[in-house]
Amino acid sequence: MNQDPNSKPISTAVIRRLPRYFRYLRELIRARITRISSKELSERMNVTASQIRQDLNCFGGFGQQGYGYNVTNLYSKISTILGTDRSYTAVIIGIGNLGKALANNPLFEKRGVTITGLFDISSEVIGTEIAGVKVSDFETIEAFMAEKKADIAVLTVPKNQAADVAERLAKCGVRGFWNFSNMELTLEKYNVRIENIHLGDTLMTLCYELTKLDDEKKADK
Amino acid sequence: MNQDPNSKPISTAVIRRLPRYFRYLRELIRARITRISSKELSERMNVTASQIRQDLNCFGGFGQQGYGYNVTNLYSKISTILGTDRSYTAVIIGIGNLGKALANNPLFEKRGVTITGLFDISSEVIGTEIAGVKVSDFETIEAFMAEKKADIAVLTVPKNQAADVAERLAKCGVRGFWNFSNMELTLEKYNVRIENIHLGDTLMTLCYELTKLDDEKKADK
Repeated sequence: MNQDPNSKPISTAVIRRLPRYFRYLRELIRARITRISSKELSERMNVTASQIRQDLNCFGGFGQQGYGYNVTNLYSKISTILGTDRSYTAVIIGIGNLGKALANNPLFEKRGVTITGLFDISSEVIGTEIAGVKVSDFETIEAFMAEKKADIAVLTVPKNQAADVAERLAKCGVRGFWNFSNMELTLEKYNVRIENIHLGDTLMTLCYELTKLDDEKKADK
Repeated sequence: MNQDPNSKPISTAVIRRLPRYFRYLRELIRARITRISSKELSERMNVTASQIRQDLNCFGGFGQQGYGYNVTNLYSKISTILGTDRSYTAVIIGIGNLGKALANNPLFEKRGVTITGLFDISSEVIGTEIAGVKVSDFETIEAFMAEKKADIAVLTVPKNQAADVAERLAKCGVRGFWNFSNMELTLEKYNVRIENIHLGDTLMTLCYELTKLDDEKKADK
């Protein structure tokens, strides 16, 4: 990657917002929009213009007074930072409903991630095929990793199995965990990266918003 | 809700962290731990102790010098703020792989949300039963809402259908949207709340972390 080695590291908070910029800019490119001001981008994204300028300044600040941002340049820069120009391989561990849904989901392909293996421990699922990939016995994961390697493991196993499964995967070389197991993983011994997905947390936030909405309505009466 | 009407509104950032506190405190209760210091909570949650004190101070600050927090009190307070003592109803719109996986997921029940209806437009799915609920034709949604109501719509429809579907739902009384469609909804006309789930964004963040990890390894050589 042609990143300036002297550049300051970008904060996690900014990094977490980058995929959203990336999606918006892709839409702009599709709509053949070639430049955009931070004000316009701010209205589309529902973020303050000053936040946008701050975020984008973190990696070079391509905005020009009176011109705005060059959409293609910005998109390509964010794309490089996010590593979307690299391709990765992934295995899905736990082929229940969610595992199946993810295996069929185009989001992997969109991000340059190829599913190379599906694993489960249930004889009912092992041997079946999903999205062109056969489900293998998780007991064979070490052999699979020795031969094929996978960068990422998508963990859709039950909570009580997550810790053991994750440790086995880390031991045989998995470096990234996309963790849907609702169990926070502790893999400090290994040099791995983890994204914990707690779907329930966002449902809870939504319920909180509804509770507040109802209370406001009651108070208005 | 017995919320002090004079209390300051809690910021969205704090609210978004509450489900995580809620989950940790529930685990502590299960482990029969009755009190905890902000330092211990901070180590478990991988958040700074000062952040925890700040967050919890927002709604009353139950911590006592030299004692820490009473786990049950804190849990019950957060539970009330999040509205987990209230129950809600939800419909799932779009019974593809993800819709099916969600319909079978215990997370709704855990948050006191009852799935009362499943809807799709495909004749292959309509009439089938998932988790004890029959899939209905989305064309009948207005009749369903007139009779039964639903607080929340889980949107697992394709991106290009999301805007129309969401507008129809908002018109017939849905107040909360748990949106997996990857289309950011614009429903400003309606007094609704939306939680957008972009699973792909977190996969992208994970890929970014792996890219950085690889670059660090290369730099070490």
